[in-house]
Amino acid sequence: MENGGVVSVNYESKTTSTITIKSTLSLLMASVGENYDDSKRIISLGMGDPTIYTCFHTTSVAEEAVTDTLQSHKFHGYAPTAGLPQARNAIAEYLSRDLPYQLSSEDVFITCGCTQAIDVSIAMLARPGANILLPRPGFPLYELSAAFRHVEVRHYNLLPEKSWEVDLDAIETLADQNTVALVIINPGNPCGNVYTYNHLEKIAETAKRLGTIVIADEVYGHLAFGANPFVPMGVFGSIVPVLTLGSLSKRWIVPGWRLGWFVTNDPCGTFRKPKVVEVIKKYFDLLGGPATFIQAAVPRIISLTGEVFFQKTIDNLKHTLDICCQEIEDIPCISCPNKPEGSMAMMVKLNVSLLEDISDDMDFCFKLAKEESVIILPGTAVGLKDWLRITFAADQSAVREGMKRIKSFYQRHARKTSKQY
Amino acid sequence: MENGGVVSVNYESKTTSTITIKSTLSLLMASVGENYDDSKRIISLGMGDPTIYTCFHTTSVAEEAVTDTLQSHKFHGYAPTAGLPQARNAIAEYLSRDLPYQLSSEDVFITCGCTQAIDVSIAMLARPGANILLPRPGFPLYELSAAFRHVEVRHYNLLPEKSWEVDLDAIETLADQNTVALVIINPGNPCGNVYTYNHLEKIAETAKRLGTIVIADEVYGHLAFGANPFVPMGVFGSIVPVLTLGSLSKRWIVPGWRLGWFVTNDPCGTFRKPKVVEVIKKYFDLLGGPATFIQAAVPRIISLTGEVFFQKTIDNLKHTLDICCQEIEDIPCISCPNKPEGSMAMMVKLNVSLLEDISDDMDFCFKLAKEESVIILPGTAVGLKDWLRITFAADQSAVREGMKRIKSFYQRHARKTSKQY
Repeated sequence: MENGGVVSVNYESKTTSTITIKSTLSLLMASVGENYDDSKRIISLGMGDPTIYTCFHTTSVAEEAVTDTLQSHKFHGYAPTAGLPQARNAIAEYLSRDLPYQLSSEDVFITCGCTQAIDVSIAMLARPGANILLPRPGFPLYELSAAFRHVEVRHYNLLPEKSWEVDLDAIETLADQNTVALVIINPGNPCGNVYTYNHLEKIAETAKRLGTIVIADEVYGHLAFGANPFVPMGVFGSIVPVLTLGSLSKRWIVPGWRLGWFVTNDPCGTFRKPKVVEVIKKYFDLLGGPATFIQAAVPRIISLTGEVFFQKTIDNLKHTLDICCQEIEDIPCISCPNKPEGSMAMMVKLNVSLLEDISDDMDFCFKLAKEESVIILPGTAVGLKDWLRITFAADQSAVREGMKRIKSFYQRHARKTSKQY
Repeated sequence: MENGGVVSVNYESKTTSTITIKSTLSLLMASVGENYDDSKRIISLGMGDPTIYTCFHTTSVAEEAVTDTLQSHKFHGYAPTAGLPQARNAIAEYLSRDLPYQLSSEDVFITCGCTQAIDVSIAMLARPGANILLPRPGFPLYELSAAFRHVEVRHYNLLPEKSWEVDLDAIETLADQNTVALVIINPGNPCGNVYTYNHLEKIAETAKRLGTIVIADEVYGHLAFGANPFVPMGVFGSIVPVLTLGSLSKRWIVPGWRLGWFVTNDPCGTFRKPKVVEVIKKYFDLLGGPATFIQAAVPRIISLTGEVFFQKTIDNLKHTLDICCQEIEDIPCISCPNKPEGSMAMMVKLNVSLLEDISDDMDFCFKLAKEESVIILPGTAVGLKDWLRITFAADQSAVREGMKRIKSFYQRHARKTSKQY
């Protein structure tokens, strides 16, 4: 049919080859389904969405705030496309607590979760010939957005031997006059690292020297529980312009509410040029945005959520992480070079030479799903072959049971000879 | 500063020159503010958002459904990016009621309102050299999306003398092998027209002959109250593939809930090619989507909303439209060539020659806002100079008062001589 080609144009080559976490997890889930053993409930340590576990239930403050705005009948209408002023203002205040300068509500644009904030930032920067520096391992939505927005991707490595710090030397080599941004994810996904003040400052200085800006994905902001406190990249906004991406999703454990933000950390006023602001605003006219009544609840959600709730999440994550790390010790084929200090995920190295009939990380994860109904993400999906991403944001029994099954999976597939390749 | 240019690239020329309804209305509102007279509350007949009027309050069925899904704690997590299966299925069932074939849930993708559905459809079709046929007058979000997605816009006229039907002869002249879609809006915004079955069939046949597809914006679907019943374009899906865009926003009067859809009406299977579906799905991975708990409420909202609620909206719209038309009779400088039969808006022709100090539609609307605190949209914002778009989705007293003020505005500005230009 003649019309067939019309829709299939343009994007295919790059975009269909882009792996996404969700598509990989769907395939893994489908793989479980085929051989699902009723005695084994599915345990997913694959995705940063712990909402099914009661210990990761959001605060009632947030639920009540949204119920009230919904039932007030006042917020059934359109919000301004950049976001409801009171929500933009509340987020500006919230983020400014940790900055040496004050953000204004005009710096904040409300998005449908951090997902949309990622795509907006790349779409805004796209131009013919543009390239963007992305971390490896990383979060594949950046690669997908870059493919759709026709921005060339250049990967720099995160260094496992240096707590997954950015390879700054590589950045210098990769960047050129067409580099529109350097992306960092802190606290780290998939590695669970939390960068020091000094490292972030060096990143800012490097970006400045290269004449590019920094996109700081802080969707896991404040979920830090190790030696390094969380420092927002915006702290260095006077060295280099920073686009901060974030959301309520992780810290408030409501990823399904789709309330994110795209924030210009720009005390020197680079973005505040009228034309740039106008283009950003017009772009938001296309996006739809989150529900008005959810936006209207943001001021109350932010101001009334107590430290107790945040601390409980941190304690839960610390605890399940400890269980993970302890169990990993007992599973010879996987090892964790850096215990996470933040976020909800960790990268563990897979030693396939200790396994008899497992060819790589993909093979490992698909057979694990099939045989043990345990879902973990192959490192290939985040850019590192023969690594695994384990999400520890689950309840203790699920983490324990999941690791136990990985252990028996190992035992069943362990190479029988002592010979190692 | 060197970084300044990085963000300001690429989009400026086309996008900043694109007028949007919201930006025009904001400017009009600002114009009121400067001279706001406390005795005159602002009356907005400018935007299709009647939620502030109690007579256009959504049904309690919808509010309760969303409250329940929110409070169930089951929907705080991520939904699949194409949408929650039960919501996709409910929308497929809902739309299939009026089609000669059955849609499947796989045909339905959930968007943040119809706004995002518009941008998705254009972004999906974009390719180098592509052009799209848009109606004039129309809905400027299409132009804005086309500018951002680098799709050339070619306008065809709607014909006021033929009840705002599509100028099919013009379509034949405008289209070429790079035409990726023909956009129609039915029921019409801004004209309030409702197309006949025969006219829609001719549109489908024309599109087929030209080898392009139809994007049918049916955000005002079922809001028809004249001689012609609402016929969805998907009825002709076996003649030509149709992308149907819609939402809960207008029929359920909840535009702020941001629950829209992008639907492939494609009984011949053009879109169902695996690669095309894969690209659409991956594109949705970038978008964020509406809140999961709102999606979860869709099946109940659709199945439990009674005819009484829909009829009440229709009755309200008919009534306020009648008031509008009656009052217009008394205002010599404006006339309505076609009484609307659907949607929430109408186009009226402005005769500036009857006015002393009004140069055009923009001047009319800004002075009206300033002097009378009444907001109506200049036709220029929807592509027709010296016309006005009046939204009649307001309560009766607001419409009456608004028209009364327009009348006194006219009387103050009427040309004193009998001479006409």
